[in-house]
Amino acid sequence: MRRTNLFTKTLKNAPADEVAKNAQLLIRAGFIHKEMAGVYAYEPLGLRVLENIKQIVREEMNAIGGNEAMMTTLQPREIFEKSDRWDDKKVDNWFKTKLVNGSELGMGLTHEEPIVDMLSSYINSYKDLPMNIYQIQNKFRNEKRAKSGLLRGREFVMKDMYTFARNQEEHDRLYEQIAVAYHRVYARLGIGDVTFRVKADGGIFTEKYSDEFQTISPIGEDTIYHVPDTERYFNQEVAPSKAPVHEQDIEQKPMEEKYTPGVVGVEQLAKELDVPVERTVKTMLYDVDGIVTAVAVRGDYSVNDIKLRMELSAKSARLIDESTIKQVTGAEVGYAGLINLPNDVQVVVDDTVESLVNFELGANKTDYHNVNVNWGRDLEKPERFYDIKEAKEGDQDPETGRTYEVVKAVEVGNIFPLETKYTDALDVFYTDENGAKQSIIMGCYGIGISRLVGMLAEHFADDKGLVWPMNIAPYKVYLVSIGEKGAAEADKLYDELIKEGIEVLYDDRDERPGAKFADAELLGIPLRVTVSDRGIEAGEFELTERAVGETIKLNREALIAKLLMLAANS
Amino acid sequence: MRRTNLFTKTLKNAPADEVAKNAQLLIRAGFIHKEMAGVYAYEPLGLRVLENIKQIVREEMNAIGGNEAMMTTLQPREIFEKSDRWDDKKVDNWFKTKLVNGSELGMGLTHEEPIVDMLSSYINSYKDLPMNIYQIQNKFRNEKRAKSGLLRGREFVMKDMYTFARNQEEHDRLYEQIAVAYHRVYARLGIGDVTFRVKADGGIFTEKYSDEFQTISPIGEDTIYHVPDTERYFNQEVAPSKAPVHEQDIEQKPMEEKYTPGVVGVEQLAKELDVPVERTVKTMLYDVDGIVTAVAVRGDYSVNDIKLRMELSAKSARLIDESTIKQVTGAEVGYAGLINLPNDVQVVVDDTVESLVNFELGANKTDYHNVNVNWGRDLEKPERFYDIKEAKEGDQDPETGRTYEVVKAVEVGNIFPLETKYTDALDVFYTDENGAKQSIIMGCYGIGISRLVGMLAEHFADDKGLVWPMNIAPYKVYLVSIGEKGAAEADKLYDELIKEGIEVLYDDRDERPGAKFADAELLGIPLRVTVSDRGIEAGEFELTERAVGETIKLNREALIAKLLMLAANS
Repeated sequence: MRRTNLFTKTLKNAPADEVAKNAQLLIRAGFIHKEMAGVYAYEPLGLRVLENIKQIVREEMNAIGGNEAMMTTLQPREIFEKSDRWDDKKVDNWFKTKLVNGSELGMGLTHEEPIVDMLSSYINSYKDLPMNIYQIQNKFRNEKRAKSGLLRGREFVMKDMYTFARNQEEHDRLYEQIAVAYHRVYARLGIGDVTFRVKADGGIFTEKYSDEFQTISPIGEDTIYHVPDTERYFNQEVAPSKAPVHEQDIEQKPMEEKYTPGVVGVEQLAKELDVPVERTVKTMLYDVDGIVTAVAVRGDYSVNDIKLRMELSAKSARLIDESTIKQVTGAEVGYAGLINLPNDVQVVVDDTVESLVNFELGANKTDYHNVNVNWGRDLEKPERFYDIKEAKEGDQDPETGRTYEVVKAVEVGNIFPLETKYTDALDVFYTDENGAKQSIIMGCYGIGISRLVGMLAEHFADDKGLVWPMNIAPYKVYLVSIGEKGAAEADKLYDELIKEGIEVLYDDRDERPGAKFADAELLGIPLRVTVSDRGIEAGEFELTERAVGETIKLNREALIAKLLMLAANS
Repeated sequence: MRRTNLFTKTLKNAPADEVAKNAQLLIRAGFIHKEMAGVYAYEPLGLRVLENIKQIVREEMNAIGGNEAMMTTLQPREIFEKSDRWDDKKVDNWFKTKLVNGSELGMGLTHEEPIVDMLSSYINSYKDLPMNIYQIQNKFRNEKRAKSGLLRGREFVMKDMYTFARNQEEHDRLYEQIAVAYHRVYARLGIGDVTFRVKADGGIFTEKYSDEFQTISPIGEDTIYHVPDTERYFNQEVAPSKAPVHEQDIEQKPMEEKYTPGVVGVEQLAKELDVPVERTVKTMLYDVDGIVTAVAVRGDYSVNDIKLRMELSAKSARLIDESTIKQVTGAEVGYAGLINLPNDVQVVVDDTVESLVNFELGANKTDYHNVNVNWGRDLEKPERFYDIKEAKEGDQDPETGRTYEVVKAVEVGNIFPLETKYTDALDVFYTDENGAKQSIIMGCYGIGISRLVGMLAEHFADDKGLVWPMNIAPYKVYLVSIGEKGAAEADKLYDELIKEGIEVLYDDRDERPGAKFADAELLGIPLRVTVSDRGIEAGEFELTERAVGETIKLNREALIAKLLMLAANS
């Protein structure tokens, strides 16, 4: 492609309302156009990157037997009602629209239901399974805020795969096969060495973890806990954790009730009572699947709702309201503790509290806390302690006892066991070898294609602009002509490179060399070839690798051989 | 792909509510899935056809310098307000939705406005033009009824290209270049010999025709007028026409006013008055750009609103309401004529009326018609007669005098001059060589990709099922194994064909030969190869061409050579 035939130009500035670095860069370089917050059009260069990523993903999904389909954006409400995901109270980010006759339609937020519904025409017997279907399609999510550029859009491109298995073993095999394919995708995208499979929340359909693929990157918004020298990676939201040991008193002191009116927060309380924060205990009241539960954790930690839910094998765990707190504790909010709770309150205590001696605890009495509380003497020691705390830096992995390494990362994919939730809800079963009706176990597997465009743009960028890995670059070569003779020679080289099958963006504009070089850097095409009047005289062409910034001089033959080698190496 | 790995099956029946033959066939064959009326998901086979068509279109658009982009589905209202296409009263088939904050959004109905808006970042000077941009994207149209399967959907895939030119000459050159590219597309789709460029309504932005590409086909819903042995093709909606000459009386008879109460319709009137229909005259009252206009046409023709608008270079021409008719004619509806009309009424008479002698005419008097009316004697003969009639079979082309050939056809593309309507509306101009601000002339060019899937499916189908042209078939070869030895040999052949780069769908199912053959025919894969136990013994493979139905027997080497030749020939 010749620059003079490309409609985009590099821009000095992105729109003032664009705060995401990935979108700023991609807009300035003419890869995308902002239609509105979270909604971006792809200009020719951006579309080529998007398509290159799609193609890599497609090839790897096909290689494991994926059936590529393409579901629709317009969705009938009925199928989402069957799975209870239609109501805006249940799913709060639908875009909905209406037919002329007034019937409400949804805009493809997710496609579990339509895929399962389609399959109902085709699945009858055990012979029809297992099955593996995917699509690469636009998704629409009505996000309240959309400030992350391509990392979280209201309209975005996603690869979503769905598997359907006859039993857990078959499901697990498909699931692991796809995890391997995901690693191949990331390797081909140039982030294989920094992308890891990370355990994350499994949601409410399963007691298992889901798996995220996270790329370690300074641009990351997620926090990952890694056990050094192992494959154990956890998203902070589910990281099991053990607090480092703190020395405790040897002698138990007498318990005392302290008057602490209006003391807010653990830090202030610890100071007021002259107790180290590590010897305070926070008690929070939860509704866990309908059971009032007092959840206690050491004062310098907080309760992790997801871990709480998982530890109790519950479907939901949420803080209860103020009036119930008062009713249960007999005190204003802020004074909940573990002593003198009604008998029907379930008690769940984090293991950080187990070894404490002479600890502080809310007194279940307005304006009072107890100090020098001790297990066994002042209250019964629970038979079991739990790990329901939010992990923090310095914590250890309970399984290996090793201290976590904590890193920032960007989610680049996820895979998820759905059990039989959607297949059962949409009444799709299979008949087994014995003629018995059986549930179908489903998994779903996502890769945000447009998210990857933004993520890779930002991850690899330097202070001069974009730096695309060879495999997904919109073009492999940026050809720059300087001077009249240079232009004539560059014209010939352009034709020849195209004949050789090398994708070239040819800067044939009537512009200063500096402007062309600056554009080459902002656009991030991996290889720059410069053909100048002066070079021609010396029989030399300049080849610059964008990522390393080094320039070498080659004669024509050597240049073409080198370009072929570098471009093929992808 | 192995059939056992493909999730679709052929179905006995399409959904009962599916009335379109193209959709019925494609659903039964497992190419598409109906989500709701006018909304279809693509299953693997259908997606492959869709992608093959996209790719052909893409290659031809790129070959003429098209910049491929990808606009968004979610659209801000502001840009459509600028061109006055937001209001549902102006454009009645929007799907609209809302952001969480309540702002209304549109769903990509068409993309002139967003494309022009995007270009505003890049077009300043004459050096930035001409430009040619296209996308292949989903469109959403809230059609009241959607009963034509893929031929007219609520959600469908379209290739839309837009050109931007500095002057009319440049626009015309781009326009003709794209018309040529369109012909190449249709040739590659296997309909080149029956697809023609047809003049059609140019709409309200231009006094010119637009151009449709129409494929002559018995499944067609459009009527095309063709002047034999020429390139002159017209959509009926704009076909210029001359009625065949009818003999007229030599002597003028005295005009008479006839009492004709309650006579409805031209046929009944002619009978009642004993006048041939060809000597009756219909007068209709129109509002043409605000001017009351009496439009007269011979009784056996009807007025063509589009031709009327074009002949008068008007922006709009529509029938006036009943109360205005009464006011203008002084009579009830049904008695309008040309005699005694108010002076400020514009009179437009079709050329079918010019040569009439002793003709009938409404009397502008309730319950009365005049007979034996004659030009010059009973009313002034207009200086000019127009061609504003709906063409009908038997009519002649006024330019060549030859009688039209009238055929049914399906629209497979259109190209359209938009003049400066959208560029002006969105304030996008360029600065010419002299520093003067100039309007940009725009054209738009559509090909309905999903429509083509349905059109080609239905056009080529026979009573056994689909018959895909080689170029767009989901696979080139349908490999059928029969018996155990056949299956072992077919396995080997499958691997070998894939190695040779031939796309094969391998029916490896444990099914009766008859069921496999029936599926092969319904699916319409161009070449069927049968590997049977009996064939193996004779060292023979059967090759059947779907379109012609003939089977030949070949040895292995000859088979592979033949398949390579046939598949490459596409």
